[in-house]
Amino acid sequence: MTQRIYSFGGGSADGSTSMKNLLGGKGANLAEMSSLGLPVPPGFTITTEVCMQYLDGIEANKSSFYTSRGAGAGAGIMEGVTLGAPPPSDPLLPDGLMDEIGTSLATVEAITGRSFGDAANPLLVSVRSGARQSMPGMMDTILNLGLNDETVQGLAAQSENPRFAWDSYRRFVMMYANVAMGLERAQLDAIVQADMKRNGVTEDADVTAEQWMALVPKLKDRVQELKRRPFPEDPLEQLAGAVRAVFSSWNVPRARFYRKENGFDDRWGTAVNVQAMVFGNLGDDSATGVCFTRDPKNGERVFFGEFLLNAQGEDVVAGIRTPQPLNREGGDANTTLPTLQEVMPKAYEELVAAYEALEAHYTDMQDIEFTVEDNRLWLLQTRTGKRTGQAAVRIAVDMVQEGLIDAETAVRRVSAAHVSQLLHPTIDPSAERTVIARGLPASPGAATGIVVFTADEAVKQAAEGHDVILVREETSPEDIHGMAAAKGILTARGGQTSHAAVVARGMGVCCVAGCKEIVVHERQGFFETRGDRIVTLREGDLITLDGGAGEVLLGAVAVSTPELASSGLTELLAWADGFARLGVRANADTPDDAALARSFGATGIGLCRTEHMFFEADRIAAVRQMILAEDEQERSRALNKLYPVQRADFAGIFRAMDGLPVTIRLLDPPLHEFLPHEGHEIEELAQVLGVPISRVQAQVEHLREANPMMGHRGCRLGLTHPSIYTMQVRAILDAAIDAQREGIDVRPEIMIPLVGAEAELKRLRDLTMRTAEQVFLNREAKVSFLCGTMIELPRACLIADRIAEHADFFSFGTNDLTQTTFGYSRDDAGFLKAYTSAQLGILQSDPFVTLDVQGVGQLVEMGTARGRSGKPDLKVGICGEHGGDPASIAFVHGAGLDYVSCSPYRVPVARIAAAHAALESP
Amino acid sequence: MTQRIYSFGGGSADGSTSMKNLLGGKGANLAEMSSLGLPVPPGFTITTEVCMQYLDGIEANKSSFYTSRGAGAGAGIMEGVTLGAPPPSDPLLPDGLMDEIGTSLATVEAITGRSFGDAANPLLVSVRSGARQSMPGMMDTILNLGLNDETVQGLAAQSENPRFAWDSYRRFVMMYANVAMGLERAQLDAIVQADMKRNGVTEDADVTAEQWMALVPKLKDRVQELKRRPFPEDPLEQLAGAVRAVFSSWNVPRARFYRKENGFDDRWGTAVNVQAMVFGNLGDDSATGVCFTRDPKNGERVFFGEFLLNAQGEDVVAGIRTPQPLNREGGDANTTLPTLQEVMPKAYEELVAAYEALEAHYTDMQDIEFTVEDNRLWLLQTRTGKRTGQAAVRIAVDMVQEGLIDAETAVRRVSAAHVSQLLHPTIDPSAERTVIARGLPASPGAATGIVVFTADEAVKQAAEGHDVILVREETSPEDIHGMAAAKGILTARGGQTSHAAVVARGMGVCCVAGCKEIVVHERQGFFETRGDRIVTLREGDLITLDGGAGEVLLGAVAVSTPELASSGLTELLAWADGFARLGVRANADTPDDAALARSFGATGIGLCRTEHMFFEADRIAAVRQMILAEDEQERSRALNKLYPVQRADFAGIFRAMDGLPVTIRLLDPPLHEFLPHEGHEIEELAQVLGVPISRVQAQVEHLREANPMMGHRGCRLGLTHPSIYTMQVRAILDAAIDAQREGIDVRPEIMIPLVGAEAELKRLRDLTMRTAEQVFLNREAKVSFLCGTMIELPRACLIADRIAEHADFFSFGTNDLTQTTFGYSRDDAGFLKAYTSAQLGILQSDPFVTLDVQGVGQLVEMGTARGRSGKPDLKVGICGEHGGDPASIAFVHGAGLDYVSCSPYRVPVARIAAAHAALESP
Repeated sequence: MTQRIYSFGGGSADGSTSMKNLLGGKGANLAEMSSLGLPVPPGFTITTEVCMQYLDGIEANKSSFYTSRGAGAGAGIMEGVTLGAPPPSDPLLPDGLMDEIGTSLATVEAITGRSFGDAANPLLVSVRSGARQSMPGMMDTILNLGLNDETVQGLAAQSENPRFAWDSYRRFVMMYANVAMGLERAQLDAIVQADMKRNGVTEDADVTAEQWMALVPKLKDRVQELKRRPFPEDPLEQLAGAVRAVFSSWNVPRARFYRKENGFDDRWGTAVNVQAMVFGNLGDDSATGVCFTRDPKNGERVFFGEFLLNAQGEDVVAGIRTPQPLNREGGDANTTLPTLQEVMPKAYEELVAAYEALEAHYTDMQDIEFTVEDNRLWLLQTRTGKRTGQAAVRIAVDMVQEGLIDAETAVRRVSAAHVSQLLHPTIDPSAERTVIARGLPASPGAATGIVVFTADEAVKQAAEGHDVILVREETSPEDIHGMAAAKGILTARGGQTSHAAVVARGMGVCCVAGCKEIVVHERQGFFETRGDRIVTLREGDLITLDGGAGEVLLGAVAVSTPELASSGLTELLAWADGFARLGVRANADTPDDAALARSFGATGIGLCRTEHMFFEADRIAAVRQMILAEDEQERSRALNKLYPVQRADFAGIFRAMDGLPVTIRLLDPPLHEFLPHEGHEIEELAQVLGVPISRVQAQVEHLREANPMMGHRGCRLGLTHPSIYTMQVRAILDAAIDAQREGIDVRPEIMIPLVGAEAELKRLRDLTMRTAEQVFLNREAKVSFLCGTMIELPRACLIADRIAEHADFFSFGTNDLTQTTFGYSRDDAGFLKAYTSAQLGILQSDPFVTLDVQGVGQLVEMGTARGRSGKPDLKVGICGEHGGDPASIAFVHGAGLDYVSCSPYRVPVARIAAAHAALESP
Repeated sequence: MTQRIYSFGGGSADGSTSMKNLLGGKGANLAEMSSLGLPVPPGFTITTEVCMQYLDGIEANKSSFYTSRGAGAGAGIMEGVTLGAPPPSDPLLPDGLMDEIGTSLATVEAITGRSFGDAANPLLVSVRSGARQSMPGMMDTILNLGLNDETVQGLAAQSENPRFAWDSYRRFVMMYANVAMGLERAQLDAIVQADMKRNGVTEDADVTAEQWMALVPKLKDRVQELKRRPFPEDPLEQLAGAVRAVFSSWNVPRARFYRKENGFDDRWGTAVNVQAMVFGNLGDDSATGVCFTRDPKNGERVFFGEFLLNAQGEDVVAGIRTPQPLNREGGDANTTLPTLQEVMPKAYEELVAAYEALEAHYTDMQDIEFTVEDNRLWLLQTRTGKRTGQAAVRIAVDMVQEGLIDAETAVRRVSAAHVSQLLHPTIDPSAERTVIARGLPASPGAATGIVVFTADEAVKQAAEGHDVILVREETSPEDIHGMAAAKGILTARGGQTSHAAVVARGMGVCCVAGCKEIVVHERQGFFETRGDRIVTLREGDLITLDGGAGEVLLGAVAVSTPELASSGLTELLAWADGFARLGVRANADTPDDAALARSFGATGIGLCRTEHMFFEADRIAAVRQMILAEDEQERSRALNKLYPVQRADFAGIFRAMDGLPVTIRLLDPPLHEFLPHEGHEIEELAQVLGVPISRVQAQVEHLREANPMMGHRGCRLGLTHPSIYTMQVRAILDAAIDAQREGIDVRPEIMIPLVGAEAELKRLRDLTMRTAEQVFLNREAKVSFLCGTMIELPRACLIADRIAEHADFFSFGTNDLTQTTFGYSRDDAGFLKAYTSAQLGILQSDPFVTLDVQGVGQLVEMGTARGRSGKPDLKVGICGEHGGDPASIAFVHGAGLDYVSCSPYRVPVARIAAAHAALESP
């Protein structure tokens, strides 16, 4: 028969850390600690298999499961339970389990010298759940199980502390009634509150032993009244109920939801840990605390923790009393409270020895719970400690240097989220958030600052030393200086590809865009929210943006900015690169962005969007002139103005990326994006260009599109306006020759966007090659370059074999591909919030954040396979926002692509994710 | 050795009609006529194989092809050619061909009793090209070949008509120089004109024999000067040149383009027909003409044709003289010109005998060219006559009744275009078109009328008996009465799915929508065009719309409206249905549309768009109230107003479709489509609903989308606003029960639009089923119904297996599927005109008209295969505009779908196309 219960304690154990799946994380670690000879209160673990057997039994409602009537400790008692009046709703535990529990309890009794249910010398136990992964939502803990009207007397006598005994008893009754019998906490709390009020007491601490004693029967009566069954007096019945409660908690909705969210299997089940109680609240020689083997905030190698004298674990969690530091090194420098080292030097020494042993054993930072009972140290739990990104990196790198772990382990241990945390300011997760409006999470990071409504004001206030948040209906190229001066940008209109979003991401400034829940009155100098909570904010008021969540928060909220230089990230990512197969390029549009991307370790530029150069103040006029041109001659004049500017830009990028490939996408957006749409802007433009207002208006009207995302853009523009692409190709290749003559190793890759038909690419490749020949002839020089295409339409994936005939490379534009595959407009997908909500649950995640493997992924695989069918060495990458998303990177790795490209600030994240993908792929 | 030349004439022939591929259509028919004993001038046909051999030889520039030096008629002459100075550009004819030509000429000489190149009794020939399909662009005809300075004398003597001889000669020189030597016509015309001017003559007819005689050497000198080679005097050299010219004309750009357009193979090649000349211009006992065995305009069984006395074929074509009728029955009733029957009774009798023999032989209406030379009838050509749609149907049906052909042949002979012509008024193809603006071809048909700018004015003018064209910036539901009164609708804004387009198609009224080339000033009562030609048109001015081409024409243009009842179409389509495998359903939104569809033979409703019901004047207010509702209660009140209206509509449709399936799509468009967008309309709406203007404005603003096509619509709306779908399902099923209680056989199919994720359909199917249970419980009745989905997103095709688990049927919405697969917005795809132009040639055809087999078709096949993988009997149809397009129907048939659905007016077209698809599939 399979072993169903694993004992631990007294310096040995049946189980070990390697049995996490069977014993849960907590049980496995308790066993491991016990085997290591560390002081662990004895106990046993009921396996996760039993849990699933139990739950399946309920499911099947099978008669083969029944409570034991056999022999063993407490067998008679169990018989009583069975013969009594068990409510019909009580499901039966697997056959023989209670016998085995009795046997295991006997072992604990032997080690502790106490007896379960013994009136004079009672053994009390805690019962805890424990799955293979820590999982909020399930039942946590029942303490002091085994207390009843008899054993409480023994506890009082033994501890010589009746108040402690009765307090423990009433706590147990309340906890058990809540978690094992399903009562609302509030239903018993009300009785406690009423009693305390009658007794004129306001704090728990002031309640006397007698008062607690008087309360217990009242609590039990209330349980009987509400549940129509008595509170169990029999300790074994209590234990059976607690085990059932732990098992059942596996299937409560919150746990199910959490598993679904995290992709955990419903068949894992939870183990049950039953462990002898130790008490940190027996007096001033007792204490309870939590410690970390290194600082979980910054990763410093310092022993760090907190404790409370004369307290139980739940008091530490409740946070009513201020905890004291373990020692001076790891504590808050400002505190003067005595340390554990000072008040209990022996226990402290034991704890230090234990933490050193545990960290050395587990070779990772541990989060340890301990209790000191009458000066004796007990370890209740150890687990791998949660940590900030900064700490994760520091610990991983330090441990490699200390020889504890190897580089691969270090890389595996640092998650992409850890790296991301290191790169952007983040809102303190414990800070209170008053969300007043939600928009699109357009650029990550967080910032607090005063509201300003114009770019000029942003510059002025910033110069005076204020942090500013620029709030606009929408931004335009004229706002660039203000955007650069701001810490954050908030717009009411525009999507993920709006001017504000694009520029903010490029600058690494946080941005919430398309926030339809605000109405901006720029001229009057205020904005209003119009969601659930109506707030009016004026110039100078403080707000906070969370660009990662797309939220606007009222007032200042603590924001932390990590220190990058000393973080160890550079070393860690260098190791990561050694494991990764995927290259990581950056999306960068300017020489500055390119330099930034390179500093973050980009192996090239995967997407340089030439149009973003068009938006800058010195260029936009020429761009508009080009668009408004009435004939080829006029267009040509305008293009001639743009040509030297683009050439200089490209040369700058080539210099920044010396030796690395630079993929430059030819003009992509529809022309109307470059024209103003408001009356006064149109008038100004007409004046600047010296053309009639009506002409500008007519052209704006003419170019307007019902669905611009699917309109006259990309290669469609290149085909109908070949002079634009010709100018761009000239500028790229002339710039490449310029840089090459300076000794730069240039590797231009010209990319044609939005190809959906073979002839589109064929024609534009021809145009590119003809133009190149011309340039090379004129300059009497040559550069090697590639000419490829973005694959961003379903049709392109379907006919990728034909398209590949004219392409040196493919770059999947997964943003647009997601839009067209789903038929979702990224700028309008408000309904996606509902779609990814637990309530509707249509989609597991936002497909614009994490690549939709089921649909879009199929197309990426199809496009890659078909593209390579006739051209096996076709270079293939992706350059959508997904290029920086870890789950998407794992998919892209699996699909056999060559590289990802993402915004510069995501490059480090993508590098670690690429390493993980390689390490975790079979 | 393969036979390279086939002779005909003198009552026999080497070839026959069945050898069309080898001899071309013309050559095969000449052979067939000759075999039938009909009077055909003798001649021979050089095969298409020789043509390809010749062209391949040029291609390969192989030395193995050379002109003959062997024996045979004219061998010496050929030798002369070879030994003379053939310009190096003259490619060589295949080895031995000229020998064979000589042999064949000898046969002709024997039959005619004349000799080729003989100075006294010269044989003259015509040389014509002739591929297996008639193909414009290739060389047409060289007449009178064999004339030179010597033989012209013989012709003059024999005909006793020197003017005729010299006129023939100068014509031959001009024609030959043009088509065989590559001179521009104008280069010789100029000399003729100059000569005539000098002689004081303005008409050809007034030029004397001497003047023509004097002209010939000047023409020849000019040829020598321009081509640096003499005009060939030698008749065999002339013939060799003409043969080369015919062969080469196969590859001229126009011919290549025409073949590409029509999907003809470049390897077919053309035959060369060399035939003894007969002259219709020898005097008043000679004539030339064209006749049809039935009337090609209406199909009436009457012998019909025209002729000119004393003329050559080209004079008939030139149209300078008014032709005379063949007889009174077939002629224009108003003409008093003498008929052929009157002036040449014998030739007429022979012609009647010939036409009867030919029609009986070919069992199809023939288009015959004939010449009478000195009272003797010659047949020059017979071919299957082109005909209008009306004639095609009439002839096919009549011929079945006459026992000439079977029903299958009749069905094969009537093209989809023929049927379409029968259903809509069309612009006379020969009418002059002054196109002043182009827009989207939103609803087919054509109409001429006076311009009006308001719906009221349209009604008023129509009541006074005027045909009116309603011209609007865009239409709205308030314009319905004016649209119904108009013959045609023209809008400046909006796409194929705009209100104007949708309503016009439903009404069968022609419509040009989204005509960006006009600016409408409704209040001032005029509109202006702004394309190449600026025109201002005021109220009351006449314009013509061509809804099929999307063109606006200046003034009145002849429009013909076919007579449907007596056309024979009903019988023909009944035969067609017997051959078709695909069902043909209709897209119909109202009981009237449904009845119309049924009258056109629809086998069900494939798409009933519930939202179009929402636009009607009595409903739109409730729809808007529903959209502006601030809470569920208010929304519920509005939905309760809509419910009875929808229920009544559905009941009406079920009645009209008794016994046939009715697929009803739940609400699909984004809500903002139902709201007004102009200031004054918003004010009015606020007043009507009694809500603040700001609330309407705010909601309009809130619902606005950057790309509404990909926005919050379809099932996305159904999921976020379940009360709307619930109301609709209730209305459908209550209506079904209502109708069923009246004895109607109802077959509702509820269709969920825009599904892209499995959970969308699962949830909405659940909602549908729950609602159905409720309805059935309330009514104490049941109806059978299906619940399925539209497949209109690439992702739906990719995961069709999962979606099919929750669907009883699939209906491909190929409009949206085309939009998303290509990333084209149908409302903005102005660039598609450039894409399908010959100049760019990116796409073969507009993918919104003909389904893109390469891309969208792949998805349709994938979706069908995956959908049926787990559910083999899944019913699958398509309901996009492609459902009425013949090429798309052929694809859909091949893809194994069950039905197509199209607009009522396309149902007959689809029925014939479905039959063709079945008959032509292997």
